[in-house]
Amino acid sequence: MKIAVVAPSCTLRPEAAEAVAAMAASRGDAELVIHPQCFFSDGHFAGPDEARLAALREVMADESVDAIWFARGGYGSNRIAEAAAIGLPAAARSKSYLGYSDAGFLLAAFDREGLSVAHGPMVQDVAREGGKAAIHRALDWLVKRDPTVLEPGLASGRRAMAFNLTVLSNLIGTSIEPDFTGADLLIEDVAEHEYRIDRAMFHVTGSPVVRGVAGLRMGRMSEIPDNDPAFGSDAESIVRDWCARAGIAFGGSADIGHDAANRVVPFDLARN
Amino acid sequence: MKIAVVAPSCTLRPEAAEAVAAMAASRGDAELVIHPQCFFSDGHFAGPDEARLAALREVMADESVDAIWFARGGYGSNRIAEAAAIGLPAAARSKSYLGYSDAGFLLAAFDREGLSVAHGPMVQDVAREGGKAAIHRALDWLVKRDPTVLEPGLASGRRAMAFNLTVLSNLIGTSIEPDFTGADLLIEDVAEHEYRIDRAMFHVTGSPVVRGVAGLRMGRMSEIPDNDPAFGSDAESIVRDWCARAGIAFGGSADIGHDAANRVVPFDLARN
Repeated sequence: MKIAVVAPSCTLRPEAAEAVAAMAASRGDAELVIHPQCFFSDGHFAGPDEARLAALREVMADESVDAIWFARGGYGSNRIAEAAAIGLPAAARSKSYLGYSDAGFLLAAFDREGLSVAHGPMVQDVAREGGKAAIHRALDWLVKRDPTVLEPGLASGRRAMAFNLTVLSNLIGTSIEPDFTGADLLIEDVAEHEYRIDRAMFHVTGSPVVRGVAGLRMGRMSEIPDNDPAFGSDAESIVRDWCARAGIAFGGSADIGHDAANRVVPFDLARN
Repeated sequence: MKIAVVAPSCTLRPEAAEAVAAMAASRGDAELVIHPQCFFSDGHFAGPDEARLAALREVMADESVDAIWFARGGYGSNRIAEAAAIGLPAAARSKSYLGYSDAGFLLAAFDREGLSVAHGPMVQDVAREGGKAAIHRALDWLVKRDPTVLEPGLASGRRAMAFNLTVLSNLIGTSIEPDFTGADLLIEDVAEHEYRIDRAMFHVTGSPVVRGVAGLRMGRMSEIPDNDPAFGSDAESIVRDWCARAGIAFGGSADIGHDAANRVVPFDLARN
């Protein structure tokens, strides 16, 4: 199993790359090919748009690559997502893709094109507390399709989609918006004020296309900054409230988030 | 001229209300009626949704009220905007509405229904440095339709729309999204990181409905927090870049922003 790592958003830390490469080598079931682009730097990004797009398209077209693993989030994959999903070579369709957070823009664009995408841990998660477990979870999915790494509430035979709430809000109505119809939608977020969570939920649940989901579940909303004054309700109440207003079934919690416990959510289990 | 002040978002500071009421009284051309709801407090908001909506609907239906002036922004008008614009009484259609920032959700919902809305200073702007000039500008618009208070680049006979960029991003695709076709779109923002400005511009310019604008101009983007690392381009470059990608004509700067110099942008000059 050959897994290519590229960084469509921000620069990967070399020490994270080394730690994960060593883990993969000691497992013996995966060859990790970390593209040099992962270490490029151009302002906020892991190299200019052209370089990030070229690296991604290169590994997508490589027939020897079985899976593409996004190095980390941050911000920037939206800038290349539309171009990354155009005129796909056959080799791009025979592999799978894994990431979350800002990489959600690519998950959306690729899912829209019928590629096999999953929301789950990325390479730089090794730096989190307990991060090695996240790395093994990701590799167990990519290499073995191990069902024990899956988010436990997924229903077989039903599409699921998982997104960072703020990323989801920012792709509504764009050319990379996927088809939400009949899917279980799982959301998570990090470091957003409650008023921003409320505003994003207004936006996301106000979209007629999102209202076509089968239901919505809430992952962890972590590192919420203090609201001044106190907002008046917590994240779960906010999410429940907007689901009720929009007529979306709220399905409870989801085991995803910006942490080492982040479980894997394939957008289409039937394809895997 | 009777002007009603309500607070669809956050609580108005009493000292701001007093200062502006005194200014209006000394002008002698406007009776300012500050609704008690402006001083309500419920968590983040100037009272619960029901109270903010009731106050707004009350003054909208009041035939003796000539104009409705939003007290201040913050966050929360989106939570009542759809309900505020439903089943409008005739009295609501014969008056004008003024505000900006979070009040943009109401400007959108009301413009969509054909009401006479304008983007411009609010009551609490009196607390800004040089804020009295902003208050007089607002009153000169509401009372006299003084053309010297208008944003100087507005073209007579062409629709214009002005929004806080983040607010605009959060109403795309919702039921309160107005018709952008053929309008000059003016944007401004405050206290958003460059990566968030970039992401919001991706989102807004990625919308087919927004791409129907005649052109886009950029107001002030103020209090931008430091990006770590340095983002790599400034706000104007970001806005120009996304306009170019979307095929939207970039028309240069606009004299609007979160400051005392904020000029007035009526959405439909032909109606005024």
